[in-house]
Amino acid sequence: MGNIESMSQDVIAIARAGGPEVLTMARRDRPQPASGQVLIRVHSAGINRHDCGQRSRGPNTHESDIPGLEVSGHIESVGGDVRGIEVGSPVCALVDGGGYAQYAIADAANVFPVPAHLSLREAASVPEAAFTSWYNFFSVGAMQPDETALIHGGTSGVGVFAIQLLRALGHAVYTTCGSDEKVAFARSLGANDAFNYRTDDFAKRMAEAGIGVDVVLDMSGGRYIDQNLAVLAYGGRIVHLSQGPGGPLPVPLRAVMQKEARITGSLMRPLAPARKRKVAEALKEHVWPLLGEAIRPVISEVYPLAEAHSAHRRLEQGENIGKLLLAVESIAQ
Amino acid sequence: MGNIESMSQDVIAIARAGGPEVLTMARRDRPQPASGQVLIRVHSAGINRHDCGQRSRGPNTHESDIPGLEVSGHIESVGGDVRGIEVGSPVCALVDGGGYAQYAIADAANVFPVPAHLSLREAASVPEAAFTSWYNFFSVGAMQPDETALIHGGTSGVGVFAIQLLRALGHAVYTTCGSDEKVAFARSLGANDAFNYRTDDFAKRMAEAGIGVDVVLDMSGGRYIDQNLAVLAYGGRIVHLSQGPGGPLPVPLRAVMQKEARITGSLMRPLAPARKRKVAEALKEHVWPLLGEAIRPVISEVYPLAEAHSAHRRLEQGENIGKLLLAVESIAQ
Repeated sequence: MGNIESMSQDVIAIARAGGPEVLTMARRDRPQPASGQVLIRVHSAGINRHDCGQRSRGPNTHESDIPGLEVSGHIESVGGDVRGIEVGSPVCALVDGGGYAQYAIADAANVFPVPAHLSLREAASVPEAAFTSWYNFFSVGAMQPDETALIHGGTSGVGVFAIQLLRALGHAVYTTCGSDEKVAFARSLGANDAFNYRTDDFAKRMAEAGIGVDVVLDMSGGRYIDQNLAVLAYGGRIVHLSQGPGGPLPVPLRAVMQKEARITGSLMRPLAPARKRKVAEALKEHVWPLLGEAIRPVISEVYPLAEAHSAHRRLEQGENIGKLLLAVESIAQ
Repeated sequence: MGNIESMSQDVIAIARAGGPEVLTMARRDRPQPASGQVLIRVHSAGINRHDCGQRSRGPNTHESDIPGLEVSGHIESVGGDVRGIEVGSPVCALVDGGGYAQYAIADAANVFPVPAHLSLREAASVPEAAFTSWYNFFSVGAMQPDETALIHGGTSGVGVFAIQLLRALGHAVYTTCGSDEKVAFARSLGANDAFNYRTDDFAKRMAEAGIGVDVVLDMSGGRYIDQNLAVLAYGGRIVHLSQGPGGPLPVPLRAVMQKEARITGSLMRPLAPARKRKVAEALKEHVWPLLGEAIRPVISEVYPLAEAHSAHRRLEQGENIGKLLLAVESIAQ
């Protein structure tokens, strides 16, 4: 716990738009939970691709300049109108920025118990991947029972979670990865098949095997739009999580019309609170019971908070398999 | 009726890929209805944009070289397993090509009674517009009660029908047209507002009026993709009926993700028979009772069968308001 006289904290702030080096340790006041919010003493914080984008764009007035969309830790205090969350209890949470810090604010609706079989550290890897997987497959992608998924980026933080989640729910899951090592890992997670996109033509291979895909989760910004449409089943959906390198995506409209495909996507962070709440409720009901059993966290590396820049560099190199985390509680408090 | 010794007929055939001039009168055998089909002695045939595309691409082995997707006329004969359709009764029907002819085959499921208040000629203008409007708004576009529509091409054959249909069902409808005359006509059909896309910025005007659109029906091949996304409500759908002039459609992916928009479309003609049957059932239940009352056919011009090339020329000039038809029964038989 911090000194009583000092209600400040260590955080990582985005000093300006730029590369990983703009992530800077800073002292800030501890936030106070408003009504409906909790304050979490952060144990670990998850690193997400979104954070790198936010850092590249630089601080803006709509967002905290402290990155971080998910944490684990202990409840430090609760605001008004918060029920069922005890001070001191171990939790993990989706947060709207501010995760790379000793203390982080979360909406009470987006706070989850640490799953029984997971460590507090592992729990930090769950919220963003769980929200992203559930919302994009089952809400945006309208995935139906027995439908088949294709995930581009099968060993990303979202990928490793989504493969296990969908397999646990009985869906066939195919995935693409950037190396043979990643392909083997994706298979070990239960993927029905995995393809190295650098050396293999996944669309050709899937067509040869007679596989049609109902929902594609695309973190590549549409790099495989033609192949996605080629493997898509009639009425299939392509759900985009990344706008890609910039510039509009060239969409072959006739192929879309022929298959009645739907090209869509979502942004998780600005999602309306009521929608996030509904996702959180679904996660508690359908996903939390699977955690630590059918779904195991995959942690690639853990960095100290002060080394957030190294974590960003690692993520942008794309060599990680699974989640990158920041260890926050190791800092002297 | 034709001579008993001559079971042949006059048709318009596509001689080769090309302009309207490749539409050529020809003598052909009358088709025979297979099981589940009927033979219609054609009174009038509808002209659709699809026919022009088919003509430009030229004959191919997957389609009849006789264009035409909708007819009205009398039942000449019925194949096996056809119930409830009497020889001699006046009908209109969706057909899979072959409409520009004295006799046309239709699947019994896609045959409709001539609505009480419509002439046999007017009835020929209904099937394709009704199928296209219903299927794309309510199936592909998943239009919900109280949702708002935007139709590009408000005075096209589909446009004049869809405006009236959606207004009759209680939806707000906005539309764009290519001239002030067409704008006035679209308003007279009940459109809540109409915009001249040559002289007016519909997206700006709608934004100023605070109008968000849930479903866009786009026959322009995506010419207004950026404006469509600008006026789209959260979760809105853009349904494409035309692939446009060729080349992929440049889609601003971030705008799609921000609004969770769905870019989709359909091709009516190759739709699976079971799907067409479901649409036909919905039309009989929900749309047929409105015909001649809330929904009036809008016929731009009627050409003799032999003048099909003039009808195509007229359609491609884009000056028509409403449907172009071919009068077939005027030919000596």
